[in-house]
Amino acid sequence: MDDVVLVYKEKPELNAPIMIEGLPGVGNVGKLAAEHLVDQLKAVKFVEIFSKYFPPQVLVSDSGVIKLVSNEMYYVKRPDAENDLVILVGDYQGLTSDGQYELSDRTMRMAQDLGVKMTFTLGGYGLGKLIEKPRVLGAVTEEALVEEMKTHGVTFSKGEPGSGIVGASGLLLGLGKVMGMRCVCLMGETSGYFVDPKAAQAVLEVLSKILKMKLDYKDLEDKAQQIDMLTSKLKESEPPSEPRKEDLGYIG
Amino acid sequence: MDDVVLVYKEKPELNAPIMIEGLPGVGNVGKLAAEHLVDQLKAVKFVEIFSKYFPPQVLVSDSGVIKLVSNEMYYVKRPDAENDLVILVGDYQGLTSDGQYELSDRTMRMAQDLGVKMTFTLGGYGLGKLIEKPRVLGAVTEEALVEEMKTHGVTFSKGEPGSGIVGASGLLLGLGKVMGMRCVCLMGETSGYFVDPKAAQAVLEVLSKILKMKLDYKDLEDKAQQIDMLTSKLKESEPPSEPRKEDLGYIG
Amino acid sequence: MDDVVLVYKEKPELNAPIMIEGLPGVGNVGKLAAEHLVDQLKAVKFVEIFSKYFPPQVLVSDSGVIKLVSNEMYYVKRPDAENDLVILVGDYQGLTSDGQYELSDRTMRMAQDLGVKMTFTLGGYGLGKLIEKPRVLGAVTEEALVEEMKTHGVTFSKGEPGSGIVGASGLLLGLGKVMGMRCVCLMGETSGYFVDPKAAQAVLEVLSKILKMKLDYKDLEDKAQQIDMLTSKLKESEPPSEPRKEDLGYIG
Amino acid sequence: MDDVVLVYKEKPELNAPIMIEGLPGVGNVGKLAAEHLVDQLKAVKFVEIFSKYFPPQVLVSDSGVIKLVSNEMYYVKRPDAENDLVILVGDYQGLTSDGQYELSDRTMRMAQDLGVKMTFTLGGYGLGKLIEKPRVLGAVTEEALVEEMKTHGVTFSKGEPGSGIVGASGLLLGLGKVMGMRCVCLMGETSGYFVDPKAAQAVLEVLSKILKMKLDYKDLEDKAQQIDMLTSKLKESEPPSEPRKEDLGYIG
Repeated sequence: MDDVVLVYKEKPELNAPIMIEGLPGVGNVGKLAAEHLVDQLKAVKFVEIFSKYFPPQVLVSDSGVIKLVSNEMYYVKRPDAENDLVILVGDYQGLTSDGQYELSDRTMRMAQDLGVKMTFTLGGYGLGKLIEKPRVLGAVTEEALVEEMKTHGVTFSKGEPGSGIVGASGLLLGLGKVMGMRCVCLMGETSGYFVDPKAAQAVLEVLSKILKMKLDYKDLEDKAQQIDMLTSKLKESEPPSEPRKEDLGYIG
Repeated sequence: MDDVVLVYKEKPELNAPIMIEGLPGVGNVGKLAAEHLVDQLKAVKFVEIFSKYFPPQVLVSDSGVIKLVSNEMYYVKRPDAENDLVILVGDYQGLTSDGQYELSDRTMRMAQDLGVKMTFTLGGYGLGKLIEKPRVLGAVTEEALVEEMKTHGVTFSKGEPGSGIVGASGLLLGLGKVMGMRCVCLMGETSGYFVDPKAAQAVLEVLSKILKMKLDYKDLEDKAQQIDMLTSKLKESEPPSEPRKEDLGYIG
Repeated sequence: MDDVVLVYKEKPELNAPIMIEGLPGVGNVGKLAAEHLVDQLKAVKFVEIFSKYFPPQVLVSDSGVIKLVSNEMYYVKRPDAENDLVILVGDYQGLTSDGQYELSDRTMRMAQDLGVKMTFTLGGYGLGKLIEKPRVLGAVTEEALVEEMKTHGVTFSKGEPGSGIVGASGLLLGLGKVMGMRCVCLMGETSGYFVDPKAAQAVLEVLSKILKMKLDYKDLEDKAQQIDMLTSKLKESEPPSEPRKEDLGYIG
Repeated sequence: MDDVVLVYKEKPELNAPIMIEGLPGVGNVGKLAAEHLVDQLKAVKFVEIFSKYFPPQVLVSDSGVIKLVSNEMYYVKRPDAENDLVILVGDYQGLTSDGQYELSDRTMRMAQDLGVKMTFTLGGYGLGKLIEKPRVLGAVTEEALVEEMKTHGVTFSKGEPGSGIVGASGLLLGLGKVMGMRCVCLMGETSGYFVDPKAAQAVLEVLSKILKMKLDYKDLEDKAQQIDMLTSKLKESEPPSEPRKEDLGYIG
């Protein structure tokens, strides 16, 4: 079996495409954001990526039909914009270090074949505490992109993230840089305790400015409200060992 | 050394064969069921599958003769039925994720070479509690199979199994679907605490209806009785910290 | 780098050679026995086996000179006997399951090239308790060897070892059987708590009968005495929480 | 993707070069020492080594620009000395055993191509206790190097390191010996609790004698002072459960 198996439904011709990646990770911020993009932009799936670096697992739909875990690429044609889009989403990242490298390398070579010259990876920046207004932190492959991204509201903060970026969102930049591709990682601040639609929205608000897209955030806002209700209930249901009204107010 | 080594005793010519898989897993339900089939149908072993993805281990027979751990395929000629059978049993599943993929991929390609167009994988669905009458849950590779399986008593229940199916029973379906093969996973409900011949029997009762086979369940019933006696003794031997007559009644 | 690297010092011509393996394992019984053979028979090293399946480690001699961890093969010419000998010893077994397979497969193919038709693997059978007179248990690749080995004092006991044999001593038999080689595993009973020269001697006493060799056991007996003194001291130094004179008598 | 990817900036012509390795490890002694050398000797980076055996991670600079984790080789031309230098530094060692072998093997073959005939690996020897004046222990690939190194102040001590040397510093020697290269491992004694610039300086003082280099240790001394202050504070901030003035004096 090949390490990575590609099943193409279509080989699209794209106009100066920009790639956007959002795979599972901290707070599932990247995955939520990228899947929201797929929905909003009515993106078209064109290739499924299977691999022995994913877990040996199938998912089962409500009706009982299975699906082998995979990553998937979608495209969006934007006749009125400068760039078409390629969106990478999926069920899992590679399980092992070398699996991560193999999958990210393959992804980047697929992107090159599609004519991609610029990539945005989306992820969460875990703070380990609840926050009200998530900032969007950036990391880039070349100095010139720092100023460009700042003008769109991306925060560059010395020492954040201190330990670098682990996983696909970082590795795609790392390998992209070696290949000479321009790449930006956008990280929405998140507690990391729950899936975080609020952080995903923050990331998309920045990305939509950069790519001149109009997005509706109703779905993400609904999800965020559900999570808020859930976490509030959790707080209530556990008898407080110490009084901490301020803490509860902080969750908001 | 090749990753997977096949030692053929015979290359059978089979009539529209259907493959049935039962490897070790939750409650050993699949393995018990498939081995019972091999016994009952006097299936003939035709290939041994060795692999470096299995543990580096030999088993020792009562007389002292060793056997390298393996998977094995048997065939059953059924001149009076529409389909001959291929049965896959074995000592272990692959130890690692990529081992699981390599072994399942190889199995499916062997099945294709034999002319297999339909596969049933047998397994347990672990509930984490004792149950009296195990249902048989299903998962399939295409919508049309759902209704077909329901007519034979297979249960399709939204959200079960919630986390998908991990291991060979799921992966064979996943890879089968990519190859265009029709596949069904039959999962007998089980506590998962012991090997569970009762769940294996439930699975076989459904499978025998689908494949129009007559099976005798004496052996499985005997094993089930032994397990019941053992678990009853365990219950008795531990002094009850709280009275729980209802619980004991529930075990049946 | 090749997975396994062979550095030959010599390619010996051997007369109907029999291979003997003794690598680190339970109680280091196999390693102790095989190294004692190398010493006693003045065996000649002819090949070093390096591999990325061993730990990334060098050993340092008393004078400060390093040696990359390895396995090694020695030969013994026996002009007056029916069979020359090949002895496999080493610092480690393979670290991973697939490493075990790769190394054992390579070993067996090297043995075949040397003309080996029969292999003895030496190991310990861990009992988890101290014993006075270790038996030597056997496992073989074909029925006929059972009776042959019994005449030399090897014990075949139903259900022992119950879980099969894990590691090189078992795997060499498993792969040997697939290749059609006759193989015997000799396991000296040991507590498994310490390195166990007494169990190694028991194994060699059986093996020397089979191969018609005369061995001196002075070195092993000295080592056994040292271990005995050490374990006695350990017993004395720990204040007994409960009186257990009988226990101490039992250690002997 | 290749297991190891080399990105050359330049292919230097070097005069009888000697290689010096310093990668992360116990007390980061080797890495501190080798990076100090790079700074002091104004060494020139000529190749970056990327690999799937490193973690899937990028590091982020203060300005927000990323860098894929790597090892790197620098050269130093020394027109007035007998030997030019090659210095190997990096962010990580290989994550797995086989990754360690692959990376060290590749490093040694790169060194051979550059004409390297002698290699020094730098590391820490962890004692698990604080020490005032670290010795520099040695291990070598051939007997003749022991005496030579002793004349420069290297200590060879029977039974140290008892368990051999694990990781790149040992493996480069092991593989170097198989290739017929002369190699020396210099290990600075360290507690192993903190990064240890004092041990790095001890190693460099020996190495500079051997290679006839003049080094300024101001930077390392400053770092050592910072660490000392930090550890002193830690000691003060934790309320002593037992009086131990002598202990505090010992840290000095």
